Amino acid sequence: MTETTNIKAFGTEAAEAPLDQLNIKRRKPTPHDVEIDILFCGVCHSDLHTARNEWHGTIYPCVPGHEIVGRVVSVGGHVSKFKVGDMVGVGCIVDSCRECEYCQEGLEQYCEPGMTGTYNAPDKFIDGQVTYGGYSESVVVDENYVLRIPDNLDPAAAAPLLCAGITTYSPLHHWNVGPGKKVGVVGIGGLGHMGIKIAKAMGAHVVAFTTSESKFAEAKRLGADEVVLSKDAEQMAAYRGKLHFVLDAVSAEHDINAYLGLLRVDGSLALVGAPEYPLPVAAFSLIPGRKSFAGSMIGGIPETQEMLDFCGAHNIAADIEMIDIQNINDAYDRLLKGDVKYRFVIDMASLKGKN
Amino acid sequence: MTETTNIKAFGTEAAEAPLDQLNIKRRKPTPHDVEIDILFCGVCHSDLHTARNEWHGTIYPCVPGHEIVGRVVSVGGHVSKFKVGDMVGVGCIVDSCRECEYCQEGLEQYCEPGMTGTYNAPDKFIDGQVTYGGYSESVVVDENYVLRIPDNLDPAAAAPLLCAGITTYSPLHHWNVGPGKKVGVVGIGGLGHMGIKIAKAMGAHVVAFTTSESKFAEAKRLGADEVVLSKDAEQMAAYRGKLHFVLDAVSAEHDINAYLGLLRVDGSLALVGAPEYPLPVAAFSLIPGRKSFAGSMIGGIPETQEMLDFCGAHNIAADIEMIDIQNINDAYDRLLKGDVKYRFVIDMASLKGKN
Repeated sequence: MTETTNIKAFGTEAAEAPLDQLNIKRRKPTPHDVEIDILFCGVCHSDLHTARNEWHGTIYPCVPGHEIVGRVVSVGGHVSKFKVGDMVGVGCIVDSCRECEYCQEGLEQYCEPGMTGTYNAPDKFIDGQVTYGGYSESVVVDENYVLRIPDNLDPAAAAPLLCAGITTYSPLHHWNVGPGKKVGVVGIGGLGHMGIKIAKAMGAHVVAFTTSESKFAEAKRLGADEVVLSKDAEQMAAYRGKLHFVLDAVSAEHDINAYLGLLRVDGSLALVGAPEYPLPVAAFSLIPGRKSFAGSMIGGIPETQEMLDFCGAHNIAADIEMIDIQNINDAYDRLLKGDVKYRFVIDMASLKGKN
Repeated sequence: MTETTNIKAFGTEAAEAPLDQLNIKRRKPTPHDVEIDILFCGVCHSDLHTARNEWHGTIYPCVPGHEIVGRVVSVGGHVSKFKVGDMVGVGCIVDSCRECEYCQEGLEQYCEPGMTGTYNAPDKFIDGQVTYGGYSESVVVDENYVLRIPDNLDPAAAAPLLCAGITTYSPLHHWNVGPGKKVGVVGIGGLGHMGIKIAKAMGAHVVAFTTSESKFAEAKRLGADEVVLSKDAEQMAAYRGKLHFVLDAVSAEHDINAYLGLLRVDGSLALVGAPEYPLPVAAFSLIPGRKSFAGSMIGGIPETQEMLDFCGAHNIAADIEMIDIQNINDAYDRLLKGDVKYRFVIDMASLKGKN
């Protein structure tokens, strides 16, 4: 029977209820675990989807949060990778089968029996409980699923790298974005703003697409070489057949065919946003040009570390707005309106200091 | 001004009119041309679409046919690749710009200014005329767009390789199908039956998908290792996440998501049929597994020769039903009902011998 401790967290008991303070159980560190005092946690749109049961399958109470940065406060006897005092991160994955071919390749996000998500996944250690995320004082994670945060990065701004960063880095890297490549980034929000920064740091020529002229200056500030107003057919036509790759970070319904038309022969468009309804794709958007409409989901543990090290080397992190945990419900409302540049990060001192 | 000769052909003057005998002009061979006496011409579904203006843009009179096999009867003074008496083929491409990066790479099918199709494309030699296809006595083609037919293949059964063969070989080759790979082939018709034969000859483990149990034995005879009834959810579920690649040769509406679900991580589904309406694709069919929904169109000239040589080496060609040109309208009607195993080929002696 696993020993547990009670800690403070913020979460919800039902889809319709606002988030509020809760007490939850964490396991005491096993010999392979790292115990982390959480300093910052980014707010991902998935947190909201899950808290409100919009993807169905949420088990309550639900404690979201998978962009976790904090300091190691204790380590189990067999831990070799981390020591007390290290600045570390935890992303969307806290465990996986470790045996399937995908885990063996470091693609834990595609683990065959299924990865253990940082929240809302069956907890392997505490019977009848699901995993609880980073909207909490502390977390206990197997050292193999813990990441090192480069010293030169602001730990608060580094938190969103654990999901938004790897979600954009992984496809850009997988589809060989780099010098000599023209890359489109569609949607300039939490994911897209990281996509622009990372693609630029990889050496690509970055073309940002937005539905609003008001975002032109911002897109350039983030690193875009060019910005295109996607609702202007003439501006779009100028890019027909010009892009090697498109990173599509839009979660709302949108016309995929318009962007497939911008790809060169053998080009791929990778969707990282997750529109609710199926997207109509015309055969003739793909066939004359051997194009691919693809998707990509976060990244594995080795690649997440690679991404963090890359961001450290290029000194890039998320543009954030810091909030107290008590304002999380307002933050969700603003998130729905796209009213954030570009990621809310919770200062977890606000949870510890009060009540 | 290009000199021309009049020859007999079979074609149509209007979308609603049946095909009938016509007289058309062919250019006399220039120094770079090969003149071919057409022996056989395969009947592709595109012929029907174009004759009936179903893709719009048909210019009449229209003479279809882009699966041409025949014998060289004369060569221009600068022709070095062919000599009189050679058994040769002409597929869907009779010219291209030869200068763009895609032509330079041998991807003439994706020529930037656009390839010259074997029929219904502006004729570069005869003002105001479109190109006329293989439903005719003879054809004159630049030697760079003429293919060699391996000696060991039956020339009639080789004709469909020029479109159905390359359309399936090219994506199978591009997506690295071979030993150790599990490959799905969806739809067992003109394209699909070649897909099964070629994937098997490439050394893959071939799983054929059909809506009809009556095709099980046929699929096995063609080379499938396993056959799945696609409307049986239980049979489909057994293949979830098992296939490296799916070749989708269905032109009718069908559920792409069901097949994307059968792909392994990093798997691709390539569409070579061309459904009329956009196909709804769910984001979650692609994202959890980094899957791709792709398309592919015929193949370039070097790859078409490679395919013919491959088919020669493995002694594979199409399963055909030979018809006289006078029965082409009936053949079109039967094609619409899927009543052909698996490709009609016109014996062009029927055009020459009569009238």
